[in-house]
Amino acid sequence: MRATVMYAAGDVRVVNVPDVTLVEPTDAIVRVTQACICGSDLWPYRDMAQNEQGQNMGHEAIGVVEAVGSEVRKIKVGDTVIMPFAYSDGTCDLCHDGIQTACIHGGFFGNAPGMGAQAEALRIPFADGTLYPLPTQADGALMASLLTLSDVMGTGHHAARIAQVAPGKAVAVIGDGAVGLCGVIAAKRMGAEQIIIMGRHPDRLRLAQEFGATHVVTERGEEATQKVRELTRGLGAHSVLECVGTEQSAQSAVDIARAGGAIGRVGVPHYASVPAVQTFFKNVTVGGGPAPVRAYIDELLPDVLEGRIQPGRVFDRTIGLEETPRGYQAMDSREAIKVLIQL
Amino acid sequence: MRATVMYAAGDVRVVNVPDVTLVEPTDAIVRVTQACICGSDLWPYRDMAQNEQGQNMGHEAIGVVEAVGSEVRKIKVGDTVIMPFAYSDGTCDLCHDGIQTACIHGGFFGNAPGMGAQAEALRIPFADGTLYPLPTQADGALMASLLTLSDVMGTGHHAARIAQVAPGKAVAVIGDGAVGLCGVIAAKRMGAEQIIIMGRHPDRLRLAQEFGATHVVTERGEEATQKVRELTRGLGAHSVLECVGTEQSAQSAVDIARAGGAIGRVGVPHYASVPAVQTFFKNVTVGGGPAPVRAYIDELLPDVLEGRIQPGRVFDRTIGLEETPRGYQAMDSREAIKVLIQL
Repeated sequence: MRATVMYAAGDVRVVNVPDVTLVEPTDAIVRVTQACICGSDLWPYRDMAQNEQGQNMGHEAIGVVEAVGSEVRKIKVGDTVIMPFAYSDGTCDLCHDGIQTACIHGGFFGNAPGMGAQAEALRIPFADGTLYPLPTQADGALMASLLTLSDVMGTGHHAARIAQVAPGKAVAVIGDGAVGLCGVIAAKRMGAEQIIIMGRHPDRLRLAQEFGATHVVTERGEEATQKVRELTRGLGAHSVLECVGTEQSAQSAVDIARAGGAIGRVGVPHYASVPAVQTFFKNVTVGGGPAPVRAYIDELLPDVLEGRIQPGRVFDRTIGLEETPRGYQAMDSREAIKVLIQL
Repeated sequence: MRATVMYAAGDVRVVNVPDVTLVEPTDAIVRVTQACICGSDLWPYRDMAQNEQGQNMGHEAIGVVEAVGSEVRKIKVGDTVIMPFAYSDGTCDLCHDGIQTACIHGGFFGNAPGMGAQAEALRIPFADGTLYPLPTQADGALMASLLTLSDVMGTGHHAARIAQVAPGKAVAVIGDGAVGLCGVIAAKRMGAEQIIIMGRHPDRLRLAQEFGATHVVTERGEEATQKVRELTRGLGAHSVLECVGTEQSAQSAVDIARAGGAIGRVGVPHYASVPAVQTFFKNVTVGGGPAPVRAYIDELLPDVLEGRIQPGRVFDRTIGLEETPRGYQAMDSREAIKVLIQL
């Protein structure tokens, strides 16, 4: 079968790999119908050391179940499913807590052979715990939005939830990538009164405004902090969604948070530490991490199916699997916000 | 009048100072009936540089209102009041948010001349916003417990609240000082199933158990982490109350937190940073700061008045104002948990 493998920074290829097969009795095989490229795939695309074996890429997919192991009870062959970016047994204490990304037996897609989603098919551990079957009547036109439930929409929702977004609050979203844009959708959906999007790309900022952003801040650093303060009567934002993951964005999050406010971090941190004293004296809560998107599908799915939210609009380019390397280039050069791979 | 002034590490004296007077029309003068020494007073007692003018000490008190300014509306001469450790106008957005320790016009007691509570009297800015009048029937025997509402009980409650303590949860309390002990009371009050107290002083650990601690961990560092894991089926604590403020205690808090858990920090941080990557991949929320104890009195007062909680038991020594320097010594040498100054 064909699969996307990365061998070094800038060197990503679609290659022939062995067909995937069931390994554990709790596995399923999913034939991918839609996959996509994630902002987090750009980190190795920029800095991966050469590796002859390569890394199987992709952790977001919708597909059809082609085979299930002997111990799979809920998931059936023929089901159309959402595949969250992490697999989880669905039975451990942490899964019961709703924190499936910390599942005791779990892990992440897009690492091991046969487990990348930018491929014709992939192997799904703990199929019953991991996969989310879609209702049979799901409209094909909704597939782009449904696909975001495997990562970016659930991740934006996680940021908003950890940042304690609630009706009447002032919210700042740092980052105008797909996750930041989904953070705007999440903040709007949770009733935020003011939603400030912070980014630099006019097309993305326009989309953010269509999603519900009420203000745009294009400055960075100290100037951005001043701007957010001006927009919030000198107080800062109750809720900050940190959707970038750089040292500067993390510091900005702390600077623009209102005293007693909360920061939801979902950008994988490319920095070592959060300032302990500044956050303490401001009584600012800092949380977040890999979003347990599996837990959020129940809540978000009806809004997608009934068209109340349209996170699929973050996809501004659709390609075939063989064009995937070109998709990486388009996202890396900011020509595309997020690229959908249609199989 | 007599007041406690610190001039250098180890050099704290009760001295004659000018009588306090009303300065602003929103001020009140409170004649102190009960004050106390705080664990945080021990930081300057250990490391304050010599200062000839000295620092007026004390930020916890109960007293009787002796005079009020022309713009004070709610507080009356003769009221018995709790004085929270921070003053706050009660009218700004942040006070309305319930985060009075970040009041736009506010500040902390125990800094400026005439504003230390280990004294015969002190000046209270924004009397209406700051002071909490006690019901006239308050029993004298309850005064020690009521006094804790000016700081340590409210601070322990803040840690528990930020650490998201709830029924059925496993809670770890780092630190067996007065705040940690009040954290145990708060965790028990909020329905925690398991309360692990982490400290090294047998008398304090016994009191923690009387307050509701179900387990004691006397180890530190990696050994403590192992012990907490053993007690929580390998998962760690849902809620961690960090009531110390050292680098080691802050790191332990992160290490012992369960994935998806929360840390409430109330020990003033004597460290620069919180680890960004470890907290992210564990999805652990880190919050806390100077507790808005003013906001919590409404909730905690009935439990004190009706004897359901007895935080005043953290006071294991009572002295007169003139003996205050001896009180500092007793706390510094760990002879006393917390010293009450009875005027």
